[in-house]
Amino acid sequence: MKSLGKHLIVELYECDFDLINEVGSVEKILVEAVAISKATIVQPVFHQFSPHGVSGVVVIAESHFTIHTWPEYGYCALDIFTCGDLIDSDASLQYLKEAFKAGSMSVMEIKRGVLDLPAEELRHKP
Amino acid sequence: MKSLGKHLIVELYECDFDLINEVGSVEKILVEAVAISKATIVQPVFHQFSPHGVSGVVVIAESHFTIHTWPEYGYCALDIFTCGDLIDSDASLQYLKEAFKAGSMSVMEIKRGVLDLPAEELRHKP
Repeated sequence: MKSLGKHLIVELYECDFDLINEVGSVEKILVEAVAISKATIVQPVFHQFSPHGVSGVVVIAESHFTIHTWPEYGYCALDIFTCGDLIDSDASLQYLKEAFKAGSMSVMEIKRGVLDLPAEELRHKP
Repeated sequence: MKSLGKHLIVELYECDFDLINEVGSVEKILVEAVAISKATIVQPVFHQFSPHGVSGVVVIAESHFTIHTWPEYGYCALDIFTCGDLIDSDASLQYLKEAFKAGSMSVMEIKRGVLDLPAEELRHKP
C-alpha cells in the first residue's frame, strides 16, 4: 500500500540519564541520526527543561525528527516522520538506540497519507 | 492507564488548497490552535516548499504540534503531542479541522510513556 509518509513512533527505555538530560548531547545525537538517514536538515530546535528533560525537533525537507526526554524515568519519546524512498530511517533508529544506550525499545510504524489514488500518481515532497 | 504523554495522529483530507499551500496561513492557524490548547510556545518553525507544501513545527513546553501539507492532494498530516492534564488538544483539533476546511478527518490517539510505575509517581514535564 503506497503512502505519502512513513512515521516511526518509538519508545526508548532505560536510557543513560546524563545523555538524555543534556541538551548538547541530545542535539548532537539527533542531528547525527538525521545525517545517517540521508535526510536534509531545514532547521533544528532544541530546548533544555528545568530541572530535567530536553525537547528537540529537526525539521527536514522530508518531514521531521522529534524527541522528548524524561531522564528521571530513563525514557525518550522519539518520532521519525519521513517521506520519499531514499531516506533510511531504520538506520537512524538503530543508531539512536545505541547512542542513548537504551536498554529496550518499542517501535510502531504508521503509514501517513494513504490516499485513494493509483500508486503511480503519488509523488513525494519535495 | 497513566502515561507521560498523549499523542494525536491526525489525517486531514479534502482541505482548502490555498490555505494549506501558503506558509503564512498555515503558521497563523497552527499557532492559534496551540493558543486554544493553552499550551506554551517555546519556538515555531515553518517552511514553504516549492512548488507545493508547507512543513510546520511548534515546539511547546508540553511537547509539540507538527504539520506537513500536500496541497495537491488536499491532505495534511498533523501531530499533536502534549503532556499534562491542563492542555486541551481536542479543542485544538476541532479548530484545525474547521480552519483548514477539511472535508474529513481521521484521528488515532496514542499514549506515550506508559511506564511500569505507580500512577502517583508519574509527573509531567515541565
